[in-house]
Amino acid sequence: MQEEIFELIEGKKYARIRELLSEMNPADIALILEDVPERELPVIFRILPKELASEVFVEMDSEMQQLLIEAFSDKELREVMNELFMDDTVDIIDEMPASVAKRILQQTDPNTRRMINQLLAYPDDSAGSIMTTEYVDLKKDMTVDMAFDRIRKIGVDTETIYTCYVIDQSRHLLGIVSVKDLLLNPKDKLIEEIMDENIIFANTLDDKEEVAGLFEKYDMLALPVVDKENRLVGIVTVDDAIDVIQEEATEDIEKMAAILPSDKSYFRTGVWATFRSRIPWLMLLMISATFTGAIISNFEEKLTVFPALIAFIPMLMDTGGNSGSQSSVTIIRAISLGDVEFKDILKVIWKEIRVALCCSLALAAINFLKLLTVDYYILHTFDPGKQIPEIAVVCLTLFFTILVAKLVGCTLPIFAKKIGFDPAVMASPFITTIVDAISLVIYFRIAIMVLGI
Amino acid sequence: MQEEIFELIEGKKYARIRELLSEMNPADIALILEDVPERELPVIFRILPKELASEVFVEMDSEMQQLLIEAFSDKELREVMNELFMDDTVDIIDEMPASVAKRILQQTDPNTRRMINQLLAYPDDSAGSIMTTEYVDLKKDMTVDMAFDRIRKIGVDTETIYTCYVIDQSRHLLGIVSVKDLLLNPKDKLIEEIMDENIIFANTLDDKEEVAGLFEKYDMLALPVVDKENRLVGIVTVDDAIDVIQEEATEDIEKMAAILPSDKSYFRTGVWATFRSRIPWLMLLMISATFTGAIISNFEEKLTVFPALIAFIPMLMDTGGNSGSQSSVTIIRAISLGDVEFKDILKVIWKEIRVALCCSLALAAINFLKLLTVDYYILHTFDPGKQIPEIAVVCLTLFFTILVAKLVGCTLPIFAKKIGFDPAVMASPFITTIVDAISLVIYFRIAIMVLGI
Repeated sequence: MQEEIFELIEGKKYARIRELLSEMNPADIALILEDVPERELPVIFRILPKELASEVFVEMDSEMQQLLIEAFSDKELREVMNELFMDDTVDIIDEMPASVAKRILQQTDPNTRRMINQLLAYPDDSAGSIMTTEYVDLKKDMTVDMAFDRIRKIGVDTETIYTCYVIDQSRHLLGIVSVKDLLLNPKDKLIEEIMDENIIFANTLDDKEEVAGLFEKYDMLALPVVDKENRLVGIVTVDDAIDVIQEEATEDIEKMAAILPSDKSYFRTGVWATFRSRIPWLMLLMISATFTGAIISNFEEKLTVFPALIAFIPMLMDTGGNSGSQSSVTIIRAISLGDVEFKDILKVIWKEIRVALCCSLALAAINFLKLLTVDYYILHTFDPGKQIPEIAVVCLTLFFTILVAKLVGCTLPIFAKKIGFDPAVMASPFITTIVDAISLVIYFRIAIMVLGI
Repeated sequence: MQEEIFELIEGKKYARIRELLSEMNPADIALILEDVPERELPVIFRILPKELASEVFVEMDSEMQQLLIEAFSDKELREVMNELFMDDTVDIIDEMPASVAKRILQQTDPNTRRMINQLLAYPDDSAGSIMTTEYVDLKKDMTVDMAFDRIRKIGVDTETIYTCYVIDQSRHLLGIVSVKDLLLNPKDKLIEEIMDENIIFANTLDDKEEVAGLFEKYDMLALPVVDKENRLVGIVTVDDAIDVIQEEATEDIEKMAAILPSDKSYFRTGVWATFRSRIPWLMLLMISATFTGAIISNFEEKLTVFPALIAFIPMLMDTGGNSGSQSSVTIIRAISLGDVEFKDILKVIWKEIRVALCCSLALAAINFLKLLTVDYYILHTFDPGKQIPEIAVVCLTLFFTILVAKLVGCTLPIFAKKIGFDPAVMASPFITTIVDAISLVIYFRIAIMVLGI
């Protein structure tokens, strides 16, 4: 399909392109247009039917949108923007350089402009920033038939018609009515008799991640958003909630890997931007890892007496780091899914202690067996008569390191959340650095005690 | 609210409980019932209005469901199950022990039973396993008015009425019509004139993660699912797609932290189950980390000549591991969001090489400066006259380790995906173990060359 269209573009067969694209989905058209040469892009975009063109425009990434806006006449720009829903308009303006944003705003009527500026003012992570202002509002003294008339009248321009909002004169939200309710009730029934007054809603300043969580919990298609005075100001639709869920998961995963989150996809982020998102944590962690070096330096002379101890350092550090990150990542995800809160901390610690005991016993035992069998019989690197104390040191260290690693791993994210930090930052790399230092201290302490050095 | 209800339960004020609960949302009621003593649970459940009771039942976790089923009479069981949608019924049966599942199946009529068994047969990760079989089907020669009649007739028992599916006599999918289309068209218009024939659909055996991705891409409320002969067999609704998106993100995060994924929340997973999900990777990674030990053993004698080199081992290993996991996690997420495919591998490598060069130059330079300033002037642990060659070794190693770590980190997930492995497994812990070994080899090679040992 894609290749066929590219051939048609080269052959300038625009009528056929229009025909082909008109049958396609906006998201797919936007994907195809991504690979169209910049010079041809405005031409192809202009041959799309008007309504479809706006739907495609929304699906494009901001660089392509900017390119098109710069190619548009004022009239074309107005036409495209008029078809957009308010939340999409605001998203687009948000991504544009100031001069382009200004030009867009100049092409909107004063009312819309005021609305856009209001929406732009909501913080990036708030419900207000993802809501749209086009919805079907009803009055409680309407009949079902009147409600259908209103839907027919304003429904074309609203993002969803399936949930309608019943408001009073001062726009306070009284109830919600679904089109399903309307269809299953007689035509002359009053809205106030069928509306659901048990409403799940958000405030404009609520965290958008929590709002997305409400969709997951209550299986809704749209959620009303009210201002401080409890007046209905907009709705969030389920497609935006899905986007938020995906973005937040990506952000958490990036933070867990010690990357500053970016809101662009992999190939859209330039080398320099990728570098800047990765270097701060790498640098911080490298510098803190030198503390571990200092611990070793202190023990250097004793290590030269028992050089076999050096060989176990990587294994102990890695196992400690992995154990700790298992706990921290589990807890971070549980916090973000709402399964774990600060009040659960003792329950979490108690569970992690028992898991840690199982893990550390199992690993210490396996390690002991491996040394006695593989290393002794096969590799001949191990002399039980001479090295039993050294092995005891390694297995004991393994035991305590895992215990400490899991405790540090499960508590740090909870404390981070409590003091207002992002728990996701307390993941693997951070925990690894802390656990490395702790495991070395444990290792050397035990070595001093057991080996008497 | 919760406390008020518990007090009412103790006072056996059932009428008031019914009144309070009837105004609440099923998901919230299920949460409250979680904390009700097991003995009281069936009593409280029975006072709920029938339809609400079934909605609450779906929101409960499987242990509570089992408890209730065991308390139900056959008649009660039939009543609850009759109200459920097919996908929920199948999910519940899937979680029950064989004897309970058998009892449920015995209470359903032969037709439903056959349908349930069919749905149970779909693989766990397929579109078939999350679809439901209740939807509104229309014929193309119906008018808009007839379509509304059909919706009114069967709409109560379907999971969504907002997208209707136009099928022919052998249930082949011809098009879709939304209720919005129906409302905005005259009553006598034929369905075939307004239906959308450009349908996005899934096959029963498609991966459910990919199906959820379609919802994200095309902003749909429901997706039709067809069998091998292209006959419509069910639909997936957006609420199930959201659940899949969250589950898959959790699963990816768990795999990235070297945990075998579980489908239960943190506190629902017992200590033993948590232990079993964590120990396999810990054990494997511990054993592979002993290879790193073997590399050090080989170099042991030389290390005792330059003991200062030992202190840098943790910093080099950690920095390498962190660099590698940044790349691998970024690529794993990009793969699962569909941004990176196998054909992009050269583009990925080229980008990662440039990012790695920036990172390694920056970190090597910072490390060099730190040694020359902090360690020399403040800590007095560094003697430039004597240790310049050692420092050169460390900085050179840092440079090459980061380069290699990023290359390994970005390519392994792509290859894993190519050969049918799960890329998420190639994350931090796995990469760390590989990069540790590589960084030590690089370190000692460079030490031998520069220091001439």
